[in-house]
Amino acid sequence: MRYAIGVEYDGHEFHGWQRLGSAEETGKGSVQAALERALSRIAAHPVSTTCAGRTDAGVHARCQVVHFDTAAIRTPRAWMLGTTTHLLPSVCVRWCREVPDDFNARFSARARHYRYRILNRPVRPALHRQYLSWELRALDAAAMHRAAQALLGEQDFSAFRTVQCQAPHARRDLQRISVVREGDEVIVEVQANAFLHHMVRNIVGSLLEVGAGVRPEVWIAELLAGRDRSLAGPTAPAAGLVFLGPLYPPQWQLPAEVTLAP
Amino acid sequence: MRYAIGVEYDGHEFHGWQRLGSAEETGKGSVQAALERALSRIAAHPVSTTCAGRTDAGVHARCQVVHFDTAAIRTPRAWMLGTTTHLLPSVCVRWCREVPDDFNARFSARARHYRYRILNRPVRPALHRQYLSWELRALDAAAMHRAAQALLGEQDFSAFRTVQCQAPHARRDLQRISVVREGDEVIVEVQANAFLHHMVRNIVGSLLEVGAGVRPEVWIAELLAGRDRSLAGPTAPAAGLVFLGPLYPPQWQLPAEVTLAP
Repeated sequence: MRYAIGVEYDGHEFHGWQRLGSAEETGKGSVQAALERALSRIAAHPVSTTCAGRTDAGVHARCQVVHFDTAAIRTPRAWMLGTTTHLLPSVCVRWCREVPDDFNARFSARARHYRYRILNRPVRPALHRQYLSWELRALDAAAMHRAAQALLGEQDFSAFRTVQCQAPHARRDLQRISVVREGDEVIVEVQANAFLHHMVRNIVGSLLEVGAGVRPEVWIAELLAGRDRSLAGPTAPAAGLVFLGPLYPPQWQLPAEVTLAP
Repeated sequence: MRYAIGVEYDGHEFHGWQRLGSAEETGKGSVQAALERALSRIAAHPVSTTCAGRTDAGVHARCQVVHFDTAAIRTPRAWMLGTTTHLLPSVCVRWCREVPDDFNARFSARARHYRYRILNRPVRPALHRQYLSWELRALDAAAMHRAAQALLGEQDFSAFRTVQCQAPHARRDLQRISVVREGDEVIVEVQANAFLHHMVRNIVGSLLEVGAGVRPEVWIAELLAGRDRSLAGPTAPAAGLVFLGPLYPPQWQLPAEVTLAP
């Protein structure tokens, strides 16, 4: 039996999604190891998981989607509530659905979307600081939005991938990117078929230079065309980033928040 | 010289606003003691503070307003940034204004407003859990809103004050109360000239009984009329509550977020 679950987590308390084997014993654990331990207790046999998008240390997830196989007979509600009981307060299972054996949380996803929140004021945040990055220079969100539109479409994102990125190529289809101001926050949302390592945080880091007036709007297009990571802005901090979730075709009958419009 | 400052804090890390004297040494400190220590370092003399609304253990503040007197000559920007430097990450000073000597953060305030956030879904929160309370029973926010309107006006709020409340009487003028659903959150906002101890959390605790269908809408009016705390709902948890701030007449020329519409 294969199940898909929607998992919410606070990235602060983990070194990232991916299980690290023996290194797990030192320092912060991985979300994957914590989740597999909890699922294994409910299943009463070892469970291994595949996720839609591996997140880095400190990055949050609103709805990470994960699939796993099990011989145990439990209702979706029992998987959701029972597994959550065995998880730290920083992780929970929001929903569970039985899925066909050919569903794959990673390969069935057609898109992923992320949100990045920047508090833009002279003083660092106290409230919600776990979920914000902070920029004291006044940001022009409209200029950031215009500059970002150069990233749309299927392009080579080498300028925005980290040197540790192990993807075989850097072409990604960026489907939507927006930058809006809401009060003293500037919010970047971005959707692509898939992302390279640090891609969102590197895009945000460069957009911040445009927003602060250090670079012209056209700089983003130039960086993209140049394909040279060393010319782009710094990697923006992890705390502001949340993986909103993947998007699947309607055929899989998953919850609306992870389903593409037909 | 008298200054007013706007202070933001995460209530989790404090036992509440008020300084406790020697008890301060054990367990969590107070926001007041931490702030006075930081202000005193900038002033280079002991500073004591008066706040607009003393918050309980665990209650957050978006804009607590505080006044203090000092002989030190510093710009408002230096007070804001310098004091914040000497505070824990869970507190910051958002702004500072010089005010006349007859301004008093507590007695000049004409109103206070609070927001209470309830995550309403089957599973406890992982993200933003520091700022949410959680209710798994499906809530009828519209019924809660209608029931709450019985609290408007100048009334005796004995039914919603804690037994520890030291106020000389229980009459308060409740100016505005709303309950709205935003996705899987139910948000209660309430404004009054002043509040009794635990008043917001006791009102929310009773509204939850109406929202869950355990009590009829008219129950809130009955509780208010009965003036008997022992009949009302339980005190809702502190984590969901944020003191948005006090409101002052325009004459004090404070920032818009703490100024009444003329």
